[in-house]
Amino acid sequence: MENDRLKKQIEFIFEIDKLKQVYRQTLLMDGTRKENDAEHSWHLSVMSILLSEYGLEKNIDTLRIIKMLLIHDIVEIDAGDTYCYDENPYKDKLERERKAADRIFTILPPDQEEQFRKLWEEFEERRTPEARFAAALDRLQPLLLNYKTNGLSWRSHGITSEKVMDRNKNTINEGSTTLWDYAEELINNSIEKGYLPK
Amino acid sequence: MENDRLKKQIEFIFEIDKLKQVYRQTLLMDGTRKENDAEHSWHLSVMSILLSEYGLEKNIDTLRIIKMLLIHDIVEIDAGDTYCYDENPYKDKLERERKAADRIFTILPPDQEEQFRKLWEEFEERRTPEARFAAALDRLQPLLLNYKTNGLSWRSHGITSEKVMDRNKNTINEGSTTLWDYAEELINNSIEKGYLPK
Repeated sequence: MENDRLKKQIEFIFEIDKLKQVYRQTLLMDGTRKENDAEHSWHLSVMSILLSEYGLEKNIDTLRIIKMLLIHDIVEIDAGDTYCYDENPYKDKLERERKAADRIFTILPPDQEEQFRKLWEEFEERRTPEARFAAALDRLQPLLLNYKTNGLSWRSHGITSEKVMDRNKNTINEGSTTLWDYAEELINNSIEKGYLPK
Repeated sequence: MENDRLKKQIEFIFEIDKLKQVYRQTLLMDGTRKENDAEHSWHLSVMSILLSEYGLEKNIDTLRIIKMLLIHDIVEIDAGDTYCYDENPYKDKLERERKAADRIFTILPPDQEEQFRKLWEEFEERRTPEARFAAALDRLQPLLLNYKTNGLSWRSHGITSEKVMDRNKNTINEGSTTLWDYAEELINNSIEKGYLPK
C-alpha cells in the first residue's frame, strides 16, 4: 500500500479490536456474562445522543462527547479494566493508562494521535462540561446494568449502598443533576429490593 | 419517577442492551468468537472518526455518520443479523426490520423516535453522502476482520472472491474510492494467501 497515512489508520483499527476482549465487572442486563469495553462504549455513546438534553450546562457539544465516550477506554487494552470500587489498583491507574496511551495512540498519524490523546485527557481531567457529562454517563450506565441484574455484581463484590453513593454522587451530579436525581432513586430502590446492602 | 420523558429514554437504554447478544457471522480478529452488533457498531463509529477524510464528497457531517452507525443495527434485536452473503433471507429483510423499528423506536419519546427512525432510514436508503460513507465502512470492517483471521468466516461459508467483489465493490466505491482501492488490494492479497478461493 502506497498510502502511508491510511496504513497507520488501518493498523490502529486492527489494534483496537482487542477492546472487545477487555471485560468489565458489570454483567449484561440478562445476567449471562460480563460486559466488555467495546459494548460499554457503544452503549454510552447512544445514551449521550438521548440524554445530552440533561447536561448541567446548555449547548454542550454532542460530537465531542461521543468521540470521548467512543475512545475513553481504549487505554484499557494494555492497562486492563480497573473496577471502580477497588481502592488499591486506582493508585497506579493513571500511570498504567498513560503508558498505554503512549503506545496505542502513537500508532495513528501524528494529527490524529494528538486528537485522540487530547480527547482522552479531556475525559480524564473532567474540566469541560462535555467531559463532566461523559463521565456522568460512564457512572450511570453500570448502575442501570446492576439494577437490571438485581445487583448481582454489587453483591458478588460485597459493595454497600454507602460505597455506591460515595463513588457516584459527585461525578454524576457534576454532569447532570437530573441524572443524579434518577440515579439516587435507582439506588434507593435497589436498597429496598435487597439488591444492595445498606 | 415523575419525569415521563426520562422514563421512556431509560426504557430504550434498557432495551438496546440486547444488541450485545446479537451475533454476526464475522469473527473477532483473534478468531476466538463471533463479533456482536454492539461491538461492531462501536468499531465502525471509531473508524468513521479516522477515515471520514476519504469520503467521496467533502465536508460530510461526521456527527450524523456516527449517529447512523451507532444505531443502524438496533433493528436486529428483533430481526436478527442477516449474513451479507445470504441470498434468501435478504428477500424479507426489509419487512422484518421495519417491523422491528416500529416496536423498538416507539419506546422513545416521539421526537427522538422520529430522529432515530430517520437516521435508520437514511442509512438504509443510501441517498445522502453521509449514508453512503457509513455503508462503505459497514462493508469494509468485516473485510478487515476476515483478513486478520485468514478468511476463517469466508471459508466456513464457502464464499468465493467473486462474491466478495460483487457484494462490496459498488457500496464501498460509492462511499469512498480510496477505501475501495484499499479493499480491493486486501481482497487480492486474500486470494494470493489462500484465504479466499478465486
